[in-house]
Amino acid sequence: MSLRLLDREFLDFCLHDWLAVGEIAERETVDAVLDLSETLARERYLTHFKAGDAQEPQIGPEGVTVHAEVKAAVGAYAELGLFGAGFPEDLGGHGLPFTVTCASFAWFAAANIATSSYAMLTVANARLIAEFGSAAQVDAFARPQIAGRWLGTMCLSEPQAGSDLGAVRTRAERVGEDHLGHRYRLTGSKMWISGGEHDIGENIVHLVLAKVAAGDGRLPEGTAGLSLFIVPRVLPDGARNDVAVAGLNHKMGYRAIPNCLLAFGENGGATGWLVGREGQGLRQMFMMMNEARICVGLGAAALACRGYGHALGYAQERLQGRLQGLGPEGASVPIIAHAAVRRMLLAQKALGEGALALCLYAARLVDGGDDDSAALLALLTPVVKTFSSEMGLEANAMAIQVHGGYGYTRDFDVEQVYRDNRLNPIHEGTTDIQAIDLLGRKLLRQGEGLAVLKGRITTTLAAASDGFADQADALKAVWAEVEAGLEMLRETEAALEVSTPFLFAFGHAVVGWIWLDLALSARGKGELLEQGTAAALRYYAACELPRVNAWLACCAAGAEVLEVDPGWM
Amino acid sequence: MSLRLLDREFLDFCLHDWLAVGEIAERETVDAVLDLSETLARERYLTHFKAGDAQEPQIGPEGVTVHAEVKAAVGAYAELGLFGAGFPEDLGGHGLPFTVTCASFAWFAAANIATSSYAMLTVANARLIAEFGSAAQVDAFARPQIAGRWLGTMCLSEPQAGSDLGAVRTRAERVGEDHLGHRYRLTGSKMWISGGEHDIGENIVHLVLAKVAAGDGRLPEGTAGLSLFIVPRVLPDGARNDVAVAGLNHKMGYRAIPNCLLAFGENGGATGWLVGREGQGLRQMFMMMNEARICVGLGAAALACRGYGHALGYAQERLQGRLQGLGPEGASVPIIAHAAVRRMLLAQKALGEGALALCLYAARLVDGGDDDSAALLALLTPVVKTFSSEMGLEANAMAIQVHGGYGYTRDFDVEQVYRDNRLNPIHEGTTDIQAIDLLGRKLLRQGEGLAVLKGRITTTLAAASDGFADQADALKAVWAEVEAGLEMLRETEAALEVSTPFLFAFGHAVVGWIWLDLALSARGKGELLEQGTAAALRYYAACELPRVNAWLACCAAGAEVLEVDPGWM
Repeated sequence: MSLRLLDREFLDFCLHDWLAVGEIAERETVDAVLDLSETLARERYLTHFKAGDAQEPQIGPEGVTVHAEVKAAVGAYAELGLFGAGFPEDLGGHGLPFTVTCASFAWFAAANIATSSYAMLTVANARLIAEFGSAAQVDAFARPQIAGRWLGTMCLSEPQAGSDLGAVRTRAERVGEDHLGHRYRLTGSKMWISGGEHDIGENIVHLVLAKVAAGDGRLPEGTAGLSLFIVPRVLPDGARNDVAVAGLNHKMGYRAIPNCLLAFGENGGATGWLVGREGQGLRQMFMMMNEARICVGLGAAALACRGYGHALGYAQERLQGRLQGLGPEGASVPIIAHAAVRRMLLAQKALGEGALALCLYAARLVDGGDDDSAALLALLTPVVKTFSSEMGLEANAMAIQVHGGYGYTRDFDVEQVYRDNRLNPIHEGTTDIQAIDLLGRKLLRQGEGLAVLKGRITTTLAAASDGFADQADALKAVWAEVEAGLEMLRETEAALEVSTPFLFAFGHAVVGWIWLDLALSARGKGELLEQGTAAALRYYAACELPRVNAWLACCAAGAEVLEVDPGWM
Repeated sequence: MSLRLLDREFLDFCLHDWLAVGEIAERETVDAVLDLSETLARERYLTHFKAGDAQEPQIGPEGVTVHAEVKAAVGAYAELGLFGAGFPEDLGGHGLPFTVTCASFAWFAAANIATSSYAMLTVANARLIAEFGSAAQVDAFARPQIAGRWLGTMCLSEPQAGSDLGAVRTRAERVGEDHLGHRYRLTGSKMWISGGEHDIGENIVHLVLAKVAAGDGRLPEGTAGLSLFIVPRVLPDGARNDVAVAGLNHKMGYRAIPNCLLAFGENGGATGWLVGREGQGLRQMFMMMNEARICVGLGAAALACRGYGHALGYAQERLQGRLQGLGPEGASVPIIAHAAVRRMLLAQKALGEGALALCLYAARLVDGGDDDSAALLALLTPVVKTFSSEMGLEANAMAIQVHGGYGYTRDFDVEQVYRDNRLNPIHEGTTDIQAIDLLGRKLLRQGEGLAVLKGRITTTLAAASDGFADQADALKAVWAEVEAGLEMLRETEAALEVSTPFLFAFGHAVVGWIWLDLALSARGKGELLEQGTAAALRYYAACELPRVNAWLACCAAGAEVLEVDPGWM
């Protein structure tokens, strides 16, 4: 049996039946894009999954070189026009909705998350320039990325500024103006730069977050003055910009893409052009980061589905143990016959495909275009990022466990899938950062998203009275607890101190709703789909929803429990 | 600040105040052994932690070679007499109680779990021969291991027989008798053999599980006829035995020790001597395996504590983010000032040190020597193995998370600690196997252990009325739920199908009791210890105990939820 990267039938169902993608794209086009994506993912991305891990990018006098198959894969992606899939035609793109480009991307992430990241970062970079840059900047820096000739990065973190961007010390000094806009000289170090240097494509466009120095030469405190700059590795005149790779980070996984420490301006200053106006950097970055967070969630979900595909295949082939009444006397049975193995498979399906559906739902909100969609999207973004990455990792741990000792060896892919996925709760905002965003910004300060969500849950619950009444009741009860927890936190001064368990509780409740909605939507859509979603819903309601209460109990205990002195620890 | 591998003060408290090790060993001796162990662990084991991972054992024409520092570390361990620490003096050992040898071993496991495994396997091997072998076998095969001159392995699994030992196909045919006992010719393949071949020491003693062929040459079905054989790599006459390494497994972690596929008898048959009588193999093996399971739990707990030590150190040094009222205006604070970080640290303490205490408690039961101890030990063994390995891994994931992106790189040790620990829920009986042991054998079939445990919990609860009344109430409520769940399962035909969530629930409730007992025991033992155990207990009661209910809910939903058809998946 060949490996199932993603369940295409489930994906089609999500897109067409559940999310009504037909309203925004032709079915024929969507099918063609998904066919193409799966084929390319299998033929060029999956093929070097292990090689890209075993043979990491190397740094030498000529710069950073990546595995030849990585280079070829990104080239093939460009050749087929996939960099431009989601961009308007007047920018050289194909104008596909975000939902469709996400579904396409999921195949590449499932096949090879590390190699898929080059495109993810490049698209995010080009999208930001297209949104906030001048026409000249778009022509000069976005179009080559949309065409896949150049690649892009996001340079935000610094060695001393990870989660805290207010601590950024990269300095920008205005030196002039030309047809590309206000020109600056940048100096500083940027850390954790994926794809920061390599030998793919003709150029790399860095989007660099830096602070504009005040008149007295000092950098403003906090996030004031943070601005975004376009800093190409090769300048328009063909000269090499003052950007150097100062070192590579050697990661647990995600190895086919180099992760760099970049030094800007070690020889007088790197040339960069301001995007938009000074001081708008954070706002611009968040637009990009929100999409990046959906993509990270999507990648994590795709890895969870990939691991599930491996485990499901293995469980049907591996013979081990005997069960009374099953097969000939004394013969070993496929391990899927053991309830403990089915439990791990169902958990992977419920968590992995639940996360995938959630990510696609969020992508559909991006394409929604109305206020409700925007508010709900803002609310769900930290959930998408965190549920998918944290639960995707849990799912991948179970994929290993289904394989027993074999799963712990590098001869089986689940070992690497697990290592790759371990990054996802960290980058593009850690779980704790997402939690503050959800509870602090999206729930306690804003409230529109929750109102929209509650409306949609109510609609789903109303439709569930026949068929899934037990699961609907369980979901209703869980949401009542989540809301009670939130009300309690509204009255709590130190609410943010317990935002992480709250995010876990909230996320699990959201995906409970997703599964109920999926199972309802699957009715009449074919027996396998109907039975599969119903089984996942039953499992989720029985074994995942009860976890919500445990996280809420931790919130209720409050920050007091966390008051400790390092000396006692 | 130097890395804290384990908290020595906490360890001393566990041993002396909580477990009254003074009853079975001199304080001075225990202190000396722990001092020596920590020193050796730091100076010879920790030093090649990364090198042993990066430079895996290699297979060549001369056999398998391991890293030179691995070899030197095992040699130093032997030189100091540590292989013999737990053996009686008349066997060349030092007669230390198991509790003390476990405490000693924890240092090596924390420093370098892979290199520490050579000794763990060797001791288990020698202990089995000492228990069941003839005097001549003990002299010939156990003594050299107790002296650390030879190393030992356990050869149980086969490629087609992992969790299911009834499927073992290695064949033993009786060929004669000599002063070492009944001699057999063995043929077959053994998989997952840690330390199966290497260049340390003078010889390797394999303990091989095989089936004795019946008169008609056929192997008995199932576990009948399973017997244990001593199969040395080098025979007493100096000739090389017919054992060959057929391949190395390349693991995610635990890399300093080779894991081998061994071929026995490819050239006519390997010579082996029967231990005890034919058909006793499983019973003998379980004696060894039960101790091995405690050691695996202990190793996992030690890794959890090691990761915690890294995270605690990092959290006090790493500056990130600003907090109102803390430090000068605008200055970054150590990340331990953030509640989200303290939550992860407390969780690691509660899970990691809780697991360590549980393991030492179980070891103390081994030294207990009465019926109650034996019954409780039998009950707790699957909990020791599973709580420590599963929750130890959770703790290590948090150790990475505290480090942010740095934790995902191989420049920081937590990355490897996490990879190493991922093995522990798999080997020496997977979590699902432990669950069947706990629920099926130890609770539904036997019941003595639970009666003893309930008695001890009642005693602890009675002592908690002043000081930890809230936590005692929470624990009491949780145990009532666990017992209700067990009663429900007694009436359920397919109870074993939900044994895994039950094991998780039971294990979490057990460690809740452990923490309450520790916190009570710590009163008056110095402020730091008192505050530390109280903080861990408060955290555990607030955030960990509520998880029990979620697992029990999954049990209550029953096997029905797990009835799925692969076609729907």
